[in-house]
Amino acid sequence: MSSDRIPEATVARLPIYHRALDQLSGDGAETVSSGRLAELTGVTAAGVRKDLSHLGSYGTRGVGYDVRYLLHSIHEALGLRQDWPVVIVGVGNLGQALVHYRGFAERGFTIVGLFDSDPTKVGTDVYGMPIRPMDEVADSLEGQPDVIGVIATPAEAAQQVADLLVAAGVVSILNFAPALVSVPDGVLVRKVDLALEMQVLTFYAQRRDEPTAAPRTAGGSAP
Amino acid sequence: MSSDRIPEATVARLPIYHRALDQLSGDGAETVSSGRLAELTGVTAAGVRKDLSHLGSYGTRGVGYDVRYLLHSIHEALGLRQDWPVVIVGVGNLGQALVHYRGFAERGFTIVGLFDSDPTKVGTDVYGMPIRPMDEVADSLEGQPDVIGVIATPAEAAQQVADLLVAAGVVSILNFAPALVSVPDGVLVRKVDLALEMQVLTFYAQRRDEPTAAPRTAGGSAP
Repeated sequence: MSSDRIPEATVARLPIYHRALDQLSGDGAETVSSGRLAELTGVTAAGVRKDLSHLGSYGTRGVGYDVRYLLHSIHEALGLRQDWPVVIVGVGNLGQALVHYRGFAERGFTIVGLFDSDPTKVGTDVYGMPIRPMDEVADSLEGQPDVIGVIATPAEAAQQVADLLVAAGVVSILNFAPALVSVPDGVLVRKVDLALEMQVLTFYAQRRDEPTAAPRTAGGSAP
Repeated sequence: MSSDRIPEATVARLPIYHRALDQLSGDGAETVSSGRLAELTGVTAAGVRKDLSHLGSYGTRGVGYDVRYLLHSIHEALGLRQDWPVVIVGVGNLGQALVHYRGFAERGFTIVGLFDSDPTKVGTDVYGMPIRPMDEVADSLEGQPDVIGVIATPAEAAQQVADLLVAAGVVSILNFAPALVSVPDGVLVRKVDLALEMQVLTFYAQRRDEPTAAPRTAGGSAP
């Protein structure tokens, strides 16, 4: 499987399929139809079939997809076979929430370092992990090319932290700060906007009087 | 503009365009090409043009889109003209991070209530706002049909909180807990998965040796 055949929009949906399949597998389901996957993910059934065809999964007419095999394929595609070390820069409420967010550990993301610029925080522990000063980022990452850097600072500090991570050799950055950051070519930044899904909610909320506008719940389960 | 003509995938991208346009507007740009918007959002230029055509915006050949007009159109489409009251259930680290997340206030989301089941938290303040017991949710929401309920509890409590919000008349729910929740027809749940973008990162990270696989940064700005 070569990733250049998988469109970026499909890649962005793979974690959503993964979560739905994980749930189905936990419930003991052996097969699943594209229609049921569509209900669980908010994608259309045709979209599900198209997305999964990029992984070489076509399902069986009248039976559907093999849950365990499909879960395995997506697991591999997402690189979840290996554990990924993660450092978090900015250990305020959000950073602390991320430290013990179960969704990370479940999917092989292991937090290996916490950094903050606040001298009153440096040296204290969060769930047994010490908070270290920013100027130790580069040293701590030496020889760890696969580490993922998480920016969990206020917006004002985001660019500075991105620069610091890039200087330390980090090429995969997840940015939770409500700010855009610039990085050199070859460094990938994904931005998590905590208000984004809220805006999708209000798009539909203000149209509740239009009955045709009601979408399937996305990510929630169908009743 | 009727929302049933806007595909759900386009709706999900509107907040991303909104953020990019807001940035461009702040930088003083008057027009923007679909190519530049593509760079800023990680969508293809053709995808940008198609998405915006659903809003009735076609741009001008050789000039591009009028930034302020387009920003206004998306602002309206997303329902950001009005303020939206928000209640947060679960005031741990994540809930507290959400209370002062600048991205909410900037976009018209006003937190009007905090609730927690922990008796040691009830009665204390977060940034001047009191934490109230769960059994006051229904009373506090009476006569507020547009309120958005945010679930920021651990996974185990998510379904119970969803039931409580639904019983209180909430029809728009944002779920931050790493768990799927079931809701009746007519209630819209959007799920925020804090690990989702991390999985997209690792998809590309494990393919770094394949030069064709490098995508544009999504949400980050191009260098």
